[in-house]
Amino acid sequence: MTVQENAPKAVILLSGGLDSSTVLAIAKAQGYACYCLSLDYHQRHNVELLAAQRVAKALGAQAHKTVQLDLSLFGGSALTDNAIAVPEYETQGIPVTYVPARNTIMLSLALAWAEVLQSRDIFIGVNALDYSGYPDCRGEYVSAFQQMANLATKAAVEGQTITVHAPLIDMTKAEIIRAGHALGLNYGLTVSCYQADSRGAACGVCDSCRFRKSGFVQAGLADPTRYRDAEKLI
Amino acid sequence: MTVQENAPKAVILLSGGLDSSTVLAIAKAQGYACYCLSLDYHQRHNVELLAAQRVAKALGAQAHKTVQLDLSLFGGSALTDNAIAVPEYETQGIPVTYVPARNTIMLSLALAWAEVLQSRDIFIGVNALDYSGYPDCRGEYVSAFQQMANLATKAAVEGQTITVHAPLIDMTKAEIIRAGHALGLNYGLTVSCYQADSRGAACGVCDSCRFRKSGFVQAGLADPTRYRDAEKLI
Repeated sequence: MTVQENAPKAVILLSGGLDSSTVLAIAKAQGYACYCLSLDYHQRHNVELLAAQRVAKALGAQAHKTVQLDLSLFGGSALTDNAIAVPEYETQGIPVTYVPARNTIMLSLALAWAEVLQSRDIFIGVNALDYSGYPDCRGEYVSAFQQMANLATKAAVEGQTITVHAPLIDMTKAEIIRAGHALGLNYGLTVSCYQADSRGAACGVCDSCRFRKSGFVQAGLADPTRYRDAEKLI
Repeated sequence: MTVQENAPKAVILLSGGLDSSTVLAIAKAQGYACYCLSLDYHQRHNVELLAAQRVAKALGAQAHKTVQLDLSLFGGSALTDNAIAVPEYETQGIPVTYVPARNTIMLSLALAWAEVLQSRDIFIGVNALDYSGYPDCRGEYVSAFQQMANLATKAAVEGQTITVHAPLIDMTKAEIIRAGHALGLNYGLTVSCYQADSRGAACGVCDSCRFRKSGFVQAGLADPTRYRDAEKLI
């Protein structure tokens, strides 16, 4: 896929997981020149950052930056504090894998880069159906961020309004997978597991694995995920 | 000043400059246990971070954290790109010392820490009178951030609403200085200059120096700022 000259620039938040990789494929298909932004927040599953690199390269991103920001400084999440275990099969409430203000921090960084790039578009892969109930994955949150962003920057004050696109917000995991598949995305490049090992092999039992696995089943598509212990699968 | 047991916790964004140091003094006087947060964004004037340490210590903060986040990765500001000079006596428009989305990034980090601390209060020293026209220093921006923050976190969803306090928003620089002075704040500890040298001595000619200097004159108080070249003063 090539990018047309004068294509509008978009900043894509890319974790290297299934959702954000699909968002990159969607933005690309919509004709944006894609500037991918990843966050190394000292997450437990930092192998996802290698996945982000692979995906950005495979989809021909214009640029890919990884910001270093150690959120373990604050703690308060199983993803940034090794003393808190990643739960299996969480069923109710917001689980301990929630990272305080993570999407707000990531969108803020995307806003900074968008302003410097003179881009009017930010893409984020949040999804409010097959997800873990994180508050910063809801449509009303995304709208409120956009409203704030349009008061926050010099670019916005000068009339360059920002749109925060969340194309997956109302899609099921199966619909997301079908959309990415239709765009030729190889999900074997992506890593979703909260406790993926250093080679990117998934645990198969955390929330993120569970949503991903059942998404492939419901989409009726082969699951290319590498699991490290097939016997532990649901 | 001692903090009462069971005092409510507040996160204070503390740059080490005149405004944020005054805000810390105000929050302390209001009875908050103060958790100070500074950002090392590879700013040109990073000596302000030493000032932040001095001020946090002098005012008996409960804790002081400095987050490392290299905003020179994005560039686009005289404060993060050494190729862009800090202007003297900027008179119109938003000057090149504006750092894209800086306050949004800092408030997002404060929001993360507040959630982990179970704090409901964030303080920021923005000011919309004697300032450089930065969009993220206006009251409507602060309100929009607060509205977004109250949709962003697990704590907010569970009813722990966040208030973003901007006590200086409508004060002149002279009023700010008088307020801090009345609370016993030693402004000699603070550094405002955008191009302060490694010892914290100020240039006397950048926007930030100009506002500070004229604030002391208007307040009728002695200016304890150390200037490195007295002849260059306005």
